Amino acid sequence: MSKLLRNVRFLISLMALAGGIATAADHAADVDPRIGTGGDGHTFPGATVPFGMIQLSPDTAMPDFKHGYKWAAGYQYGDSSILGFSHTHFSGSGHSDLGDVLVMPLAGAVKLDPGDAAVPGSGYRSRFSHASEVVQAGYYAVTLADSGVRAELTAGRRIGWHRYTFPAGQPAHLLLDLRPSIYDYPGKVLWSNLRVRTDGSVTGCRLTNGWAPGRTLCFAMRFSQPMTSRTLYDRDTDAPYKGFKGPGHQSEDHDAQDGRALEGVFDFGTLSKPLVVKVAISTVSEAGALANLDADGAGWDFDARRQQAHRAWSDALADVDVDAPAVARTQFYTALYHALLSPTLSMDVNGQYRGPDHQVHTAKGFDFYSTWSLWDVYRAQQPLMVLLHPDKSTDFVRSLLAARAASPFGILPVWAYGGLETWCMIGYHAVPVIADAYLKGVRGFDANEALQAMVASASYGPYGDLADYMKLGYVPIDREPEGASKTLEYAYDDWTIAQMATAMGKRDVAATFGKRAGNWRNAWDAKTGYMRARLANGAFREPFDPAVAGYGSDYTEGNAFQYSWYVPQDVPGLIEAMGGKKQFVDKLDGVFDAKVDPAHFKHVEDITGLIGWYAHGNEPSHHLAYLYDYAGAPEKTQQRLKQIMDSQYAARPDGLAGNDDLGQMSAWYVFTALGFYPVTPASDVYAIGRPFVAKAVLHLAGDKTFTITAAPFDALHPYVGEITLNGQPLTTPFLHHRDLIDGGELHFRMIAAPAGAATQASLAR
Amino acid sequence: MSKLLRNVRFLISLMALAGGIATAADHAADVDPRIGTGGDGHTFPGATVPFGMIQLSPDTAMPDFKHGYKWAAGYQYGDSSILGFSHTHFSGSGHSDLGDVLVMPLAGAVKLDPGDAAVPGSGYRSRFSHASEVVQAGYYAVTLADSGVRAELTAGRRIGWHRYTFPAGQPAHLLLDLRPSIYDYPGKVLWSNLRVRTDGSVTGCRLTNGWAPGRTLCFAMRFSQPMTSRTLYDRDTDAPYKGFKGPGHQSEDHDAQDGRALEGVFDFGTLSKPLVVKVAISTVSEAGALANLDADGAGWDFDARRQQAHRAWSDALADVDVDAPAVARTQFYTALYHALLSPTLSMDVNGQYRGPDHQVHTAKGFDFYSTWSLWDVYRAQQPLMVLLHPDKSTDFVRSLLAARAASPFGILPVWAYGGLETWCMIGYHAVPVIADAYLKGVRGFDANEALQAMVASASYGPYGDLADYMKLGYVPIDREPEGASKTLEYAYDDWTIAQMATAMGKRDVAATFGKRAGNWRNAWDAKTGYMRARLANGAFREPFDPAVAGYGSDYTEGNAFQYSWYVPQDVPGLIEAMGGKKQFVDKLDGVFDAKVDPAHFKHVEDITGLIGWYAHGNEPSHHLAYLYDYAGAPEKTQQRLKQIMDSQYAARPDGLAGNDDLGQMSAWYVFTALGFYPVTPASDVYAIGRPFVAKAVLHLAGDKTFTITAAPFDALHPYVGEITLNGQPLTTPFLHHRDLIDGGELHFRMIAAPAGAATQASLAR
Repeated sequence: MSKLLRNVRFLISLMALAGGIATAADHAADVDPRIGTGGDGHTFPGATVPFGMIQLSPDTAMPDFKHGYKWAAGYQYGDSSILGFSHTHFSGSGHSDLGDVLVMPLAGAVKLDPGDAAVPGSGYRSRFSHASEVVQAGYYAVTLADSGVRAELTAGRRIGWHRYTFPAGQPAHLLLDLRPSIYDYPGKVLWSNLRVRTDGSVTGCRLTNGWAPGRTLCFAMRFSQPMTSRTLYDRDTDAPYKGFKGPGHQSEDHDAQDGRALEGVFDFGTLSKPLVVKVAISTVSEAGALANLDADGAGWDFDARRQQAHRAWSDALADVDVDAPAVARTQFYTALYHALLSPTLSMDVNGQYRGPDHQVHTAKGFDFYSTWSLWDVYRAQQPLMVLLHPDKSTDFVRSLLAARAASPFGILPVWAYGGLETWCMIGYHAVPVIADAYLKGVRGFDANEALQAMVASASYGPYGDLADYMKLGYVPIDREPEGASKTLEYAYDDWTIAQMATAMGKRDVAATFGKRAGNWRNAWDAKTGYMRARLANGAFREPFDPAVAGYGSDYTEGNAFQYSWYVPQDVPGLIEAMGGKKQFVDKLDGVFDAKVDPAHFKHVEDITGLIGWYAHGNEPSHHLAYLYDYAGAPEKTQQRLKQIMDSQYAARPDGLAGNDDLGQMSAWYVFTALGFYPVTPASDVYAIGRPFVAKAVLHLAGDKTFTITAAPFDALHPYVGEITLNGQPLTTPFLHHRDLIDGGELHFRMIAAPAGAATQASLAR
Repeated sequence: MSKLLRNVRFLISLMALAGGIATAADHAADVDPRIGTGGDGHTFPGATVPFGMIQLSPDTAMPDFKHGYKWAAGYQYGDSSILGFSHTHFSGSGHSDLGDVLVMPLAGAVKLDPGDAAVPGSGYRSRFSHASEVVQAGYYAVTLADSGVRAELTAGRRIGWHRYTFPAGQPAHLLLDLRPSIYDYPGKVLWSNLRVRTDGSVTGCRLTNGWAPGRTLCFAMRFSQPMTSRTLYDRDTDAPYKGFKGPGHQSEDHDAQDGRALEGVFDFGTLSKPLVVKVAISTVSEAGALANLDADGAGWDFDARRQQAHRAWSDALADVDVDAPAVARTQFYTALYHALLSPTLSMDVNGQYRGPDHQVHTAKGFDFYSTWSLWDVYRAQQPLMVLLHPDKSTDFVRSLLAARAASPFGILPVWAYGGLETWCMIGYHAVPVIADAYLKGVRGFDANEALQAMVASASYGPYGDLADYMKLGYVPIDREPEGASKTLEYAYDDWTIAQMATAMGKRDVAATFGKRAGNWRNAWDAKTGYMRARLANGAFREPFDPAVAGYGSDYTEGNAFQYSWYVPQDVPGLIEAMGGKKQFVDKLDGVFDAKVDPAHFKHVEDITGLIGWYAHGNEPSHHLAYLYDYAGAPEKTQQRLKQIMDSQYAARPDGLAGNDDLGQMSAWYVFTALGFYPVTPASDVYAIGRPFVAKAVLHLAGDKTFTITAAPFDALHPYVGEITLNGQPLTTPFLHHRDLIDGGELHFRMIAAPAGAATQASLAR
């Protein structure tokens, strides 16, 4: 879409917003952020903008470690009380942290502890009703039943905006609690500062020992109306040696405090109009947070900020126009919304950011992003960004390279946030993210530096036993856990290095990593027909049970039924290894059609969304349905996709079958709804499934338009009879990236039943 | 002394050093840093330069909290084993912290824990003999008996230099232990990082919860010979939730670690020449420490660095030439050395420093110094700097103002180090430091800003109950501890504000604070004849016992006998209140001549150096001997000074009667040896005692020379018969600052016995 068109579209959206009417073009109005906030979706309902630094959202968890997994985003739809509103959240992660700078408005009496959710009124925690919630892209509102305060939240890139309407005649307070975190436990706050400046700004930092150890998070907060009084508290009663605590040796009521259990209560008296609060954060310093607030947070017009956030979403979602009924539109645009949440900006207005070495660096010529759930997002979420937002991909790649430059190990991020590293999950999947971007034409970064970073990450011996992998061609299970998964994923990552090296004319690198790409064969056990882990002596580990999953097994969050399909770089090779197309298809059917008791995986919380052994709730299964395409059975791909779309997604809070994983689960939905999927990122090939919308128009870079249509599009025609690209029938169910970005039209002729064997064979050739 | 002369002098010193001969001019050779390292002097023997950021010194304390007070500088002369060498130490403090970046060379076997001092060989701690020590200004050497390693240390302004000679044929290791601190206790290290960079540099930071809570200290370390291997350890076995610990999920042997119990062992194989290690520190960041190392630490010439440190001391000490026998020279120049150790540089080469708000600031046009023991050093150490180093005083005042600008409370430092605040001790004695400098002609700072900072510090209600003091004219003991001391010291500080305001023509400020200067009268109880604390209702607190001292009493580290003399701003007023000169002198004699059991003060560790109730080991007594001057009894001043000099100072490790308190105890010695003392900083008056050297030449700013002579100078002539200034007899025992800085000659005609009453009366008029 041209800039002009886009602006016209935006004006229409704005007019629609102003008039309270959603038009088809204002896709932000189709987003329902409640999707995924129940069950195990782990999304948050609060306010944010695309790739924003702020995720301002209500937290319902109790601040303790027991309220872990299901509260990874701080909020569970089934809860009935709110702890407060905090400024940082992961969207859909399987592990968690954050929940920084928690605030809670209080009317009348002040309570300093959250209290017990089971005992209403026992603390500052308040009951709420979903009926009082308004949950929109970039806006969240709720009425806190215990105090009667109406709370509204919106967000800019670096600033969270709050508007609190207090009940008439009640003294208004704002509580700031620097103690709680998401995934909390005693001792998590290592140190914190809190300060009221002479101009009434409140600033502070805290250092937490969480998922990323030793994480600094600073903030700056201002209020639209003057404080009448304020008290700062140090609630620490367990300091072995506190020393002097400030003027007067008191533990409260100063202009500043530092310690491990700080709170502030800011009093505003009886207010005649709502209190607006704006909060900027920084991973660097209070000065950074203040500068962010100064640069991006002028004035007190909450409604204008809400409109800005809405506009940011309307703009970002305008890249795809989908014609579909309301519910399908909600599902599609909410999925796209979820796919546009990470990585998140992690840089102050002056370019400073915190790196994995915990030091402060300065970005020159790009924006530094972090929150990288790379084991997940390399599969479809990042390829979706390459397709829809290649300009953003440039910054993402530069951010990965900058993080590597600041890495004490000289390697690319694995699971990073706030610039820091957690080392969560396996593989070196920043590598396929970069290779996919490069091979699909994303530029604006130093390709030589990138290739060097990729090779370094694939060659750093201490990481995930790469030392043995490089020597033996596989990761021995007697030296490193989950050896089968690691061998398979390393081999794929290696292949993507070879692809990029080839494109760059670096033959040596291409040869080395092209060879390593074949290491998947070292995990293949022809006798049992599964991928397995070997011992250092070369033998497969015994005993072997393909159903055994999770830690201690050969696999990472999976079992042999799920992981034996992981050769995205050489599906024909895998088909051959498995004995040919028929055996391959039968075996794949066996995975989907198995009778499996979900309790089998109750010890592996991430394995959810079961269809037989297929687990849509976790990433190792995500490409499986598309593998039929490679074995001459595209009608089975089409059938399985419908089965998955029908059973694993819904426009409900519990409408995600598993963790959204920073948009990967949602990006799978977006691609699949459009009719194709990047089974092998860093190749230019998409496997074609079938669309789940009658028409979709992609507005791509360079004002190119790619249109996907399907007809007849109804429940009676679930299969694909013929696919034409720009009017020419496709002979195989695959599409090339070039076909998309040049613009054009892809048409699916839908049919009621699988076409005859002849047609299928032709499509699969 | 002119720059030319000074350089000539330096060349002579250098030649003397090279030839191993100390000439009278090379005063650095007269320094014995062992003085004060035994008993309660709390000085350190290691290497440093004037006002340097680095104090590289051996630590003998066990790393636990039991080894507190007597080990405030890390080292006690009576100990027989060394824990290691660390880079930061206070000189003579009564409370403590620091001991950062502890390293220990190991030959052969590596031990990771210090072990028990009582069980030699139980850890990396090593026995040593004083016979193997060389302790000089800027240089320290010792042989570690357990390993046979010869250790040598020297220092630059920001860099510690180590040279380790390992026994032949033994594998050489350097252990870095980031766990221990001076004044240690479990949980003191909040967080730390440690990293080996690709160029072999080792960098890191640690955050400690010590005297200044939440203190960041970073370092960068390089070695003259390449490591053959290295292992980084996280020794933490008690982390409630450690998360992933880096590549491979191991807890050792990576390129980087973060955690709360880090160690590094760096291996160098069998070395054929000594290993030189250089270490820079920064309160800001690893990058800051690296930049400091790059800027100030080129090459590996340890001997050249040792010469540089020696030269720095020769230069700094050349401001006073004293003719005295060797022992007296050692005492004098060691005292001057101790007086030139603080405040310490606390700024990186790029001007960045950490402020009391824990944030990073940048100094423009001055060097930022911290380590401010202000309750002590305002008395004589800072006035000595104003006299000898007025250029440095400019930076000191600017540093105080910069700290105030970054203070969350908007007030000047109280007891600060590393830029942070501890709130230790009482009063706002940065105020007299600034006033003394200004009134004695120090310029180069913004006097208006300074006065504003002084007024703000004297008006901040929450600090030390200034709120009540401003309302009632005294600090009520039922609302705030140690009310009598606070009332007295506030009143003096207030007087110094009035003095400076008068000089600046600010009549309002002068009037307000001139009035407050009289508040000492609110502590004066004419009935008992002592300064006492009142209750908020105006009555003195009962019961009252003038001997009761310390916390819970009316006084700060003192009792009524000691504190009732604290009216430096109005000694005539105090004499009048006490009933006239005779009563005053009798009462003062009563203090010195009382029979006091030192066990009386065993609960107040700072009160030492007793002569009757007079406690030379603590600052509230420091002006007492000079008060006789004001009451017409200068011969008693002369007598008491000899009594104090003879009994409280010696050229031995236990030669300081109490904590040197960052040079205050030593500055008292320097002034007293020269024959005068600043009883009232921020006035231009010095009280004259008697010299303890036959001749002293002060080389002052503007190439002015002030010469002090005494004759006949021997034990038989301890009293002053006549004092002439530039040949003119003085009629009172007082000297003006202007007399000194204009240059001239002060001659004391010494006599055997106090002159007749007529002479005395004339001197005292």
